[in-house]
Amino acid sequence: MNKIIEQLTQRRSIRQFTGAEVKHDHLVTILQAGQQAPSSINGQQISLVITHNRERIARIAEIAGGQLQVATADMFITLVIDFNRTSMATEQSDLSHIIEQSAEGILTGAVDAGIMLNALQTAANSLGYGSTAIGGIRNNPQAMIDLLQLPEKTYPVAGMTLGVPDAKNKPQIKPRIPMASFAMCERYDSDIVRQGVEEYDQTLRCWWDQQDMPEQPSYKALVSGFYSRIYFPQVAETLEKQGFRFQDTLSESD
Amino acid sequence: MNKIIEQLTQRRSIRQFTGAEVKHDHLVTILQAGQQAPSSINGQQISLVITHNRERIARIAEIAGGQLQVATADMFITLVIDFNRTSMATEQSDLSHIIEQSAEGILTGAVDAGIMLNALQTAANSLGYGSTAIGGIRNNPQAMIDLLQLPEKTYPVAGMTLGVPDAKNKPQIKPRIPMASFAMCERYDSDIVRQGVEEYDQTLRCWWDQQDMPEQPSYKALVSGFYSRIYFPQVAETLEKQGFRFQDTLSESD
Repeated sequence: MNKIIEQLTQRRSIRQFTGAEVKHDHLVTILQAGQQAPSSINGQQISLVITHNRERIARIAEIAGGQLQVATADMFITLVIDFNRTSMATEQSDLSHIIEQSAEGILTGAVDAGIMLNALQTAANSLGYGSTAIGGIRNNPQAMIDLLQLPEKTYPVAGMTLGVPDAKNKPQIKPRIPMASFAMCERYDSDIVRQGVEEYDQTLRCWWDQQDMPEQPSYKALVSGFYSRIYFPQVAETLEKQGFRFQDTLSESD
Repeated sequence: MNKIIEQLTQRRSIRQFTGAEVKHDHLVTILQAGQQAPSSINGQQISLVITHNRERIARIAEIAGGQLQVATADMFITLVIDFNRTSMATEQSDLSHIIEQSAEGILTGAVDAGIMLNALQTAANSLGYGSTAIGGIRNNPQAMIDLLQLPEKTYPVAGMTLGVPDAKNKPQIKPRIPMASFAMCERYDSDIVRQGVEEYDQTLRCWWDQQDMPEQPSYKALVSGFYSRIYFPQVAETLEKQGFRFQDTLSESD
């Protein structure tokens, strides 16, 4: 068990901060580590916008649905799918940049953002900082686009808090679904996945009870509540407004 | 500079393997590290399918466009967006699981897959293994769906190779776009992004020449070649076939 495995297997989302600042040289190191993450075709189609200004962080907290963990973080990092960059790289050719007008382009951007987000969080964690991945900015993507002044062909797909963890309120590691129902050999097995859901529903119920938080939902209740509605209903329309399109074929007129 | 920062800032994609096996206890550790990655709402909507069988790995290499780096890896891990799991968790409620029928659901799944992919790669790297993230399975998503027997509401969004690196052919670290054009303060700045593209085009050209690979494209040529076409044109149609829909609103009849 090396330090990296130790850190990754004990990873938890940090939502309570002391208010202390992230050191500038640490921030630079975290960004360097994040930037070294791989990207599809080496397109480097992810940009970051770092928010440090208190009023602007407060605004992001509000955009994300009123999240105290965002408002009290020292910094907020927004991961932006950036086909503006790659589009600029294409300008001097005779070719039109169209990848953002495809499901492939949108998936590539989102996967690359996730890859980099994890690298940033892992680096930050190793330096003693805490963080939580924030999808909540997709609650009001247009407000993020306006706040960060994002041009066409870019999209604020995810974010993360960054700050010094409050050691007095360090959360316990949340249990996971059974390994066999998560990682399957050679073929997907719906029966094992179903067994895993049943088992985990109990596991999570017990865990919350142990945390003295019986009001927190079990897995089934949690998922049923969130996924029976489109909880962030402005994503497709704001993607389209930014020039993204979810299709496989372009007509001649495109 | 700690071990984790050292590893992350020196990360590179490994495409040449010795052919030696990944040890089983190491694989379990890598999977545990990956599973501890965060997921949106703790939905745990990513499943893995581990391919070890040689014929099946050869088939994946073929699906991904004939990639030798896949064919010669000891294992291939497919990251599957798994709303089948969360749908099962909703069955006993009165609510219908609809999140996969939204842009939000698709983005959430893709970002979560990216997050976990990086955690898996970081863990593997720390144990001496090498890996490359493989988007190429989206070249023929239906073939992956068939091979892994993926049910409705699941999607093979990305993959990764896993093997013992060939130390004699360790690649150099590929340079990145200038930091200032990658991570911006408070607001996106198109002028800086444009300067970064110009500078990086030169940087990458020089780097390939130094590797004695003058046939490799500069950044502009690379991006212009890939992003002027939808290089994986079956993504939207296969997502829809699996029950995903890229929209924000559902009609009453849905």
